[in-house]
Amino acid sequence: MIKCNLVTGSEGMYNITSELKAQIEKHQMKDGILVVYCPHTTASIVVSENVDIDVKADILSALSEAFPKKENHLHYEGNSYAHIRSTVSGVSLPLIVENQKLVLGQFQGVYFMEFDGPRTREYFLKFIASN
Amino acid sequence: MIKCNLVTGSEGMYNITSELKAQIEKHQMKDGILVVYCPHTTASIVVSENVDIDVKADILSALSEAFPKKENHLHYEGNSYAHIRSTVSGVSLPLIVENQKLVLGQFQGVYFMEFDGPRTREYFLKFIASN
Amino acid sequence: MIKCNLVTGSEGMYNITSELKAQIEKHQMKDGILVVYCPHTTASIVVSENVDIDVKADILSALSEAFPKKENHLHYEGNSYAHIRSTVSGVSLPLIVENQKLVLGQFQGVYFMEFDGPRTREYFLKFIASN
Repeated sequence: MIKCNLVTGSEGMYNITSELKAQIEKHQMKDGILVVYCPHTTASIVVSENVDIDVKADILSALSEAFPKKENHLHYEGNSYAHIRSTVSGVSLPLIVENQKLVLGQFQGVYFMEFDGPRTREYFLKFIASN
Repeated sequence: MIKCNLVTGSEGMYNITSELKAQIEKHQMKDGILVVYCPHTTASIVVSENVDIDVKADILSALSEAFPKKENHLHYEGNSYAHIRSTVSGVSLPLIVENQKLVLGQFQGVYFMEFDGPRTREYFLKFIASN
Repeated sequence: MIKCNLVTGSEGMYNITSELKAQIEKHQMKDGILVVYCPHTTASIVVSENVDIDVKADILSALSEAFPKKENHLHYEGNSYAHIRSTVSGVSLPLIVENQKLVLGQFQGVYFMEFDGPRTREYFLKFIASN
């Protein structure tokens, strides 16, 4: 398992595609499945659009509207909105690797979503080779 | 990696279960994990109910209500609602294969979700055998 | 593939982390990917916060508010809200195993989410070892 780190701002979608490509190269992952895992409960790992930066802002605002911060949430830390957004967007993502390349669509990138920063965060990579 | 294609309408849930079963048979995938991957940013891959066609209509309308098209979205193409629905429902799905059969619950099917069609779409299959 | 069972109440997040750890031990899963799969269409498998029980209540209420039960849903069984919550939160979860230990963040647990109980439910485990 490989551990990667990043430092986040208050909320945001952080493009980790280049880091994943670098790790695939460094560890010579040739062909198989790469699981990207977020060990935090107020963050997530997703695939999303990588061209127009406005898409990220729209996605974050849509999640904020669908799962708002609410006064009547019970959790004493007051960040239940961040936990729900993490649970709904998901912490574990299986990706395809072929010919030592990460398989993504033309307009896709892989993002670490921060819902409760700023924080020092990490995510894990686990590669399973096909035979 | 296997590439599959489909042509979608404006919005919808397209049952790809039969195609997956055919590919498992054709490529003699016996026992392992099959990742179904959508390389598009306004579509997704999900497991859902496969009996009553009304469930699909209800799911699509629920996503439309939770993540509506909004005038104040920033993305210049105006389809941020489709990007958010894709990100939330997910583009990568690991499925179990045993005895050359796709493991699904009695009422489950695998669906390609289109949020911004009509389009010619593709999805990828990657099989990792257990040892 | 390993089959596990649980009996649920009307709605809830059921912590299955201990059961997963016991199965990893029992079947000596040393290093690889463990897929946890829910074969039901009104339930799901997620990773979430495992410390404050109030987080679970807040997550369930947030999902209820974002995807409410509605009179105008078409599905004859009247539980479309449960199908949509299952589809959005996801039925298949890949987890990392190393040194015969389940890799989770300090505050994470694995949960079976019930949206339409009480029911007798099952979930499946499939382990793929790395080489």
